[in-house]
Amino acid sequence: MGKELLNLYYEAIESALQQQISRLDESHTALYYQMLTYHMGWTGEGAGPDASGKRIRPLLVLLTCASCQADWNLALPAAAAVELIHNFSLVHDDIQDHSDKRRGRPTLWAKWGVPQAINAGDGLFVLSNLAITDLGANYDADLVLQVGQVLQSTCLDLTRGQYLDISYEGRNDLRIEDYWPMINGKTAALLSASCMIGAILAKADGATTDAYRSFGHYLGLAFQVQDDILGIWGSEAVTGKSVSSDLLVGKKSLPVLVGLSKKGKFESRWAIGPLRVDEIEEMAGLLASEGGYEYAHNIAEQMTDLAINSLREANPQGEAGDFLMDLTDKLLKRNS
Amino acid sequence: MGKELLNLYYEAIESALQQQISRLDESHTALYYQMLTYHMGWTGEGAGPDASGKRIRPLLVLLTCASCQADWNLALPAAAAVELIHNFSLVHDDIQDHSDKRRGRPTLWAKWGVPQAINAGDGLFVLSNLAITDLGANYDADLVLQVGQVLQSTCLDLTRGQYLDISYEGRNDLRIEDYWPMINGKTAALLSASCMIGAILAKADGATTDAYRSFGHYLGLAFQVQDDILGIWGSEAVTGKSVSSDLLVGKKSLPVLVGLSKKGKFESRWAIGPLRVDEIEEMAGLLASEGGYEYAHNIAEQMTDLAINSLREANPQGEAGDFLMDLTDKLLKRNS
Repeated sequence: MGKELLNLYYEAIESALQQQISRLDESHTALYYQMLTYHMGWTGEGAGPDASGKRIRPLLVLLTCASCQADWNLALPAAAAVELIHNFSLVHDDIQDHSDKRRGRPTLWAKWGVPQAINAGDGLFVLSNLAITDLGANYDADLVLQVGQVLQSTCLDLTRGQYLDISYEGRNDLRIEDYWPMINGKTAALLSASCMIGAILAKADGATTDAYRSFGHYLGLAFQVQDDILGIWGSEAVTGKSVSSDLLVGKKSLPVLVGLSKKGKFESRWAIGPLRVDEIEEMAGLLASEGGYEYAHNIAEQMTDLAINSLREANPQGEAGDFLMDLTDKLLKRNS
Repeated sequence: MGKELLNLYYEAIESALQQQISRLDESHTALYYQMLTYHMGWTGEGAGPDASGKRIRPLLVLLTCASCQADWNLALPAAAAVELIHNFSLVHDDIQDHSDKRRGRPTLWAKWGVPQAINAGDGLFVLSNLAITDLGANYDADLVLQVGQVLQSTCLDLTRGQYLDISYEGRNDLRIEDYWPMINGKTAALLSASCMIGAILAKADGATTDAYRSFGHYLGLAFQVQDDILGIWGSEAVTGKSVSSDLLVGKKSLPVLVGLSKKGKFESRWAIGPLRVDEIEEMAGLLASEGGYEYAHNIAEQMTDLAINSLREANPQGEAGDFLMDLTDKLLKRNS
C-alpha cells in the first residue's frame, strides 16, 4: 500500500476523532475540552504524532472494511468510536496504575487531578457512544445496533480484564493461566472487535466476519505478549521507557508469571517485595535464564501464526488487504 | 394509583436491573459482580430498599410510557438503562467528592479502593449501553437509535455538569448564574431524558414528547434546589445526614451562592476557609437571615409550577398519569 493512501487513512481518522471531540468545544467548559485535546495529542506540551499513539484500532476498522471491498469512508464514525474507547480506558488506567507519564507526557490526572481525569475518561466513553449513533447516517439502523452490541460487549470485556489486572496487584499466587483472561479483556477484545466491525459494516458474510474477528483476537494477544517482552528486555533507546520498567513497577506480565511458576531464584527475590532500580538488569537476566523470555517469545510466535492464518482465511482484497498483512508483520516485529 | 400497581413497577425495575447486572455474574470475576450488587443495595451490610435509593428515574420512564397509553413492560430495558447511568455517575461522584458514605453505607471506593471503584462505575455505564441495545427486541431499530442518541447526549451533559462541579471547588468568585449549567447537567438532564424516553417509546407525538421533556427538566431543577435546602436546613432526624452537612463540606449549592452574592457576614466568614462543626448552626441561621433560604425556596416553587404546567400540557392518561402528579408533589414536599 502506498504511503499516500496510508496518509489518507490517518488524516481521515484524526479528522473523525476531532469531529467527535468538538462536541465539547464550548466556551463555558473550555478546560474540559482542552483536557481531551491534550490527551489525544493535539494540544499542549509535546503535542504531535508521537503524543497521539499509533491509532491501530481505527486503522484496523478501516482496513478491514476496505479489504472486504466496501467504502471505508462510511465506516469512519466506527473508527473514531474504537479509538475513543481505547483512550477512555487509557485515561482511567493511568489513574488506576498511578502512572504519571504516557508517551513521554504528563497524564491527565497528573496535570488536572484525579476527579477531572475520571470525568474526562467518562467523557471519551460517551463520545464513543455518540460516534456509534452517527453511523445511522450511513447505514441501516439494524446494522448500527449490531455494531453497538459488539462494541458494548467488548467494553464489558475490557472492564473484566481491568478488574482482573487490578485484583492481581499484590498477589503472589498467580499462575500462567491467570494471564489470559486479563489480556483477553484488556487488549485482545478491542482489537478483535475493531476487525469484526470493519467486516460487519462491509456486510461481509458470517464466515469472513468471524475470520476477521479471530485475526484481531490473535493479533491482540501476540501484540500484548510482544509488549510484555519489550517491557522487560527492550532497550531504553528503542522503547522510550526506562530499561525494564515493567519489572520495576511489578507488572504481572507473561514473562514474570512464567518466572514465578519456576519457583527459582527469580521467584524467591520477587516474593520479598518490590525490586530496586539497581537490581533490574540482573533480574531481567535471571528471568531470561529461567526461561521467561523463551516462553513468551514462543507464545508470541504462535499467536502471530494464528493471526496470519485467520487473516488468510478472511481472504482480504486489494491494497488494504496487503497492508493488513504488512501491519501484522510490523506490529509483531516492532521494537518499540 | 394503587399501592399494588406501584409495587408491580418497583419489582419490575429491580428485576430488569438484576438482569442487566447478571451479565457479570461469573466465577472468575465474582468480586467485580459483588461490588455492583453491593452498590445497587442488594447485597452486603445494610442491604435493602434504603440502600437502593428511590429509583425515581426508571419510574419516570415507565410512568411516562404508561401515561401515553403504551405498554410500559416493553420499556423496562430503558428504565434499567437510566438507573444504571445514574448509578455509574454516583460511583464516580463519590470518588471525586471523596465521600465515604452513601445512603448510610461505605461507598465502593471506601470498601474496595479507588482503582476498582473507577472500574465498577465504568462497568455500570457499559451495562446501561447494553440495556439500550436490548430494546431492539421490542422496538424498531430506528426508535432504539433515537433513544440511544437522547441518552448519550444526556450523558455528555452529565459530564459537563460534573466538570463544572469539580471546577467550582475552591473558587470564591462564583455567581448565582453559575449554578444553573452545573445543575442542569448533573440533575435535570437525566430526569428530563427519562421522561422523554418514556414518551418516545410510547410513540407519542412531538409536542407531547416535548412537554414530558420539559416536565422532567423542571422537576429535576426543583428537586435539586429542594435537595440543596434540605442539605442546609433539613434536620438530622429527617435527612439521615448530619445537620447542615452541605455547609461543612463547602458545597456550592444555590443558597450558598445566594449568600456569597450578598457580600455580607456569611460571605466574609466563608471567604476565610472551611467552616468548623461548631459554627454550622449559626452559619445556617446567618445564611437564612441574609435571604439564602427564601431565594432558594421561591425558586423551588417556581420550578415546581413550571414542572406541573408542563405535565398538564403533556396530558398524562390513566392511573400512571395521576401518579406522575402525585410523585411530583411528593418529591418536592419531601423532607428527606
